[in-house]
Amino acid sequence: MSHIFSDVSNRIVRSEIREILKWTRKPGVISFGGGLPDPDLFPLKDITDITKNVLDQKGYLALQYGPTKGEDVMLEALVKHMSEFGDEAALEEVAVTSSSQQGLDLLSLLYLDEGSPVVMELPSYLGAIQAFKRCGADMRGVPLDEDGMDLEMLKKTLTELKEEGKKPRFIYTIPDFQNPSGITMSLEKRKELLQICIEEDIPIVEDSPYRELSFTNEILPSLWMLSGKKGVIMLKTFSKVLFPGMRMGWLVGEPDLIDKMVMLKQSVDLCTPSFNQLILAEFIQMGKMKQTIDNAIRCYRPKSAAMLNALEKYMPDQVSWSKPSGGMFLWVKLPESIDTKEIFMTAIEHNVAYVIGRPFHCDSSGNHTLRLNYSFPSIEQIETGIKQLAETIKKVL
Amino acid sequence: MSHIFSDVSNRIVRSEIREILKWTRKPGVISFGGGLPDPDLFPLKDITDITKNVLDQKGYLALQYGPTKGEDVMLEALVKHMSEFGDEAALEEVAVTSSSQQGLDLLSLLYLDEGSPVVMELPSYLGAIQAFKRCGADMRGVPLDEDGMDLEMLKKTLTELKEEGKKPRFIYTIPDFQNPSGITMSLEKRKELLQICIEEDIPIVEDSPYRELSFTNEILPSLWMLSGKKGVIMLKTFSKVLFPGMRMGWLVGEPDLIDKMVMLKQSVDLCTPSFNQLILAEFIQMGKMKQTIDNAIRCYRPKSAAMLNALEKYMPDQVSWSKPSGGMFLWVKLPESIDTKEIFMTAIEHNVAYVIGRPFHCDSSGNHTLRLNYSFPSIEQIETGIKQLAETIKKVL
Repeated sequence: MSHIFSDVSNRIVRSEIREILKWTRKPGVISFGGGLPDPDLFPLKDITDITKNVLDQKGYLALQYGPTKGEDVMLEALVKHMSEFGDEAALEEVAVTSSSQQGLDLLSLLYLDEGSPVVMELPSYLGAIQAFKRCGADMRGVPLDEDGMDLEMLKKTLTELKEEGKKPRFIYTIPDFQNPSGITMSLEKRKELLQICIEEDIPIVEDSPYRELSFTNEILPSLWMLSGKKGVIMLKTFSKVLFPGMRMGWLVGEPDLIDKMVMLKQSVDLCTPSFNQLILAEFIQMGKMKQTIDNAIRCYRPKSAAMLNALEKYMPDQVSWSKPSGGMFLWVKLPESIDTKEIFMTAIEHNVAYVIGRPFHCDSSGNHTLRLNYSFPSIEQIETGIKQLAETIKKVL
Repeated sequence: MSHIFSDVSNRIVRSEIREILKWTRKPGVISFGGGLPDPDLFPLKDITDITKNVLDQKGYLALQYGPTKGEDVMLEALVKHMSEFGDEAALEEVAVTSSSQQGLDLLSLLYLDEGSPVVMELPSYLGAIQAFKRCGADMRGVPLDEDGMDLEMLKKTLTELKEEGKKPRFIYTIPDFQNPSGITMSLEKRKELLQICIEEDIPIVEDSPYRELSFTNEILPSLWMLSGKKGVIMLKTFSKVLFPGMRMGWLVGEPDLIDKMVMLKQSVDLCTPSFNQLILAEFIQMGKMKQTIDNAIRCYRPKSAAMLNALEKYMPDQVSWSKPSGGMFLWVKLPESIDTKEIFMTAIEHNVAYVIGRPFHCDSSGNHTLRLNYSFPSIEQIETGIKQLAETIKKVL
């Protein structure tokens, strides 16, 4: 049987990262490769008790079809959760998604045609690049400074696009503890970015999976709030701050945009599991979410410090890295002559794994970069693994 | 802020059905409108116990990210489940989806470009029409006979397409207890359809959500099995046979097609909740699925009989209906002069609701048709509601 596949499916290629991540399973290898939360933080007892309650009291609702926009109790819980981190939203400004990746999917369906220009950070989140690539988007990268997107380069990119007669459908940014870089956008830059977007009439997509995981007491105002809740769509998820296994995310935006994405969601999965929504809604309403996030911060802060210390202690001078104040990742730049994909197997021989940086670049640059995760490994593994990584790099230098 | 939306989002319109279904919530109205399983069948106690077990024994796995293709234990359980209903599949021929609607989404992404021809039954499943429409597919409808798709009309449609220089990307069919019609394709027609598809080199999509719900002891061989597991993709779900609230579906097909759809799934939601997968896998492995389905059949068979009896008893001569031997729906044809949308409010005045037939037709025909659901209402409600519906129809005739 011969198959005629779509243009979409022809754009999808197997991920380079998945191919090499197989090696991280080699016994003895310390992996900084994944993006997994520490499973010791999972509130198993609470979830067990709450599930029993939900099935006892609302079982008929939990196992039935639910509204595409999300269960009312979940929408209310999401609004409550956000308010604890400085973000206000009305119920009509929020919709549940089956993971934040689905948020990216809906966003892509809403905005992107083949060739649609999109501006994003260099580096940026892999899953976003994948979703935009599927739609055939024309992705333009803007480098990151230590305080977020290089706004002079952004202006230059917008001018270039204008000269080509093009306008970005949106600017995609991860302002808090960015994946993969760990970098946070400063308040000044947030304001300036918004100003640029108002002047140029371009919507912003604020991807915000790590926002709650601040190691200092500071959380900067979101673009959503700074914008007066206009022209910004925020993507949220519990995968990083709680656990990924229920695939629960949500969208925040102006009601008419939320409406449109809910209509698109109908064709995508009809609705997100009510079972999972009712459990997490109760978890939030009981005040358990805040508590779990505090635990996560208490767990990840020392891990991050341990990684920074080990890098300081072992890495040769030619290597630099970001200093995240939250989140799960840290970004390393090697001398430009070194291709992190080429030396990956040498690292595996030294029993350490990372994620290569290139796939995080929409322009396929970043050969000499890599991402390290510190949320999953133990502090001991971090110390040993970074030492082994430094040895790898010294060997190839 | 001005937004430039995609062609995709411009194709999506609010569903006519959703707009009128609001009325079914009017107090006193008996609704045959939804497609909901009877919640009294939900095995709440079993799911509570199994969830506790899963979190106790595999909590770290259940709440973590899982493989895009699905958890191994789930894939094994799906293969076991299918084998109990006559369908064989190897593990590499199966992939988990977050609902069968996601299966339709992935299928659309795999095959459909704007203008791609697709052949489907008249009437057919609304969610499929919605997914294909989103991609801008050129949908061609083939009428249903009492024993399934009219194959002479199918041949005619294929000839017409050929004359236009076109070939369908696939033929979409629901052979068992079809939604919305309740009709089952005969064994002879299944064989002939396969023969046509082999000769014309066209893949078949076999949507199979109701297959397990046979009121007789007979389940006909699936197209998947009759084809020798070649050229057929089967879509499955637990939403109808168990409950919809965990949004758990799966795809069955040749390994290279499954691979491609799993790659597409990465950009759609990364993975289906491991939590839900581990719970349902244990449910199946404990033999509980078969037991729940037997209960569902024992519940729906008399409801279906009650509806058929009431139709026989109350409906005027000009009205005809299908006689389903399984599933959840029954299809009614009124005289062509009557538009079921126009008389809908009269039905509401008579305290009864149905789903209008037109949205189930990819060619917007079927004004005089309607769908009745018998799984959700009680036998008493069925008797009373059909009487009220007959009164409505007599009034407008």
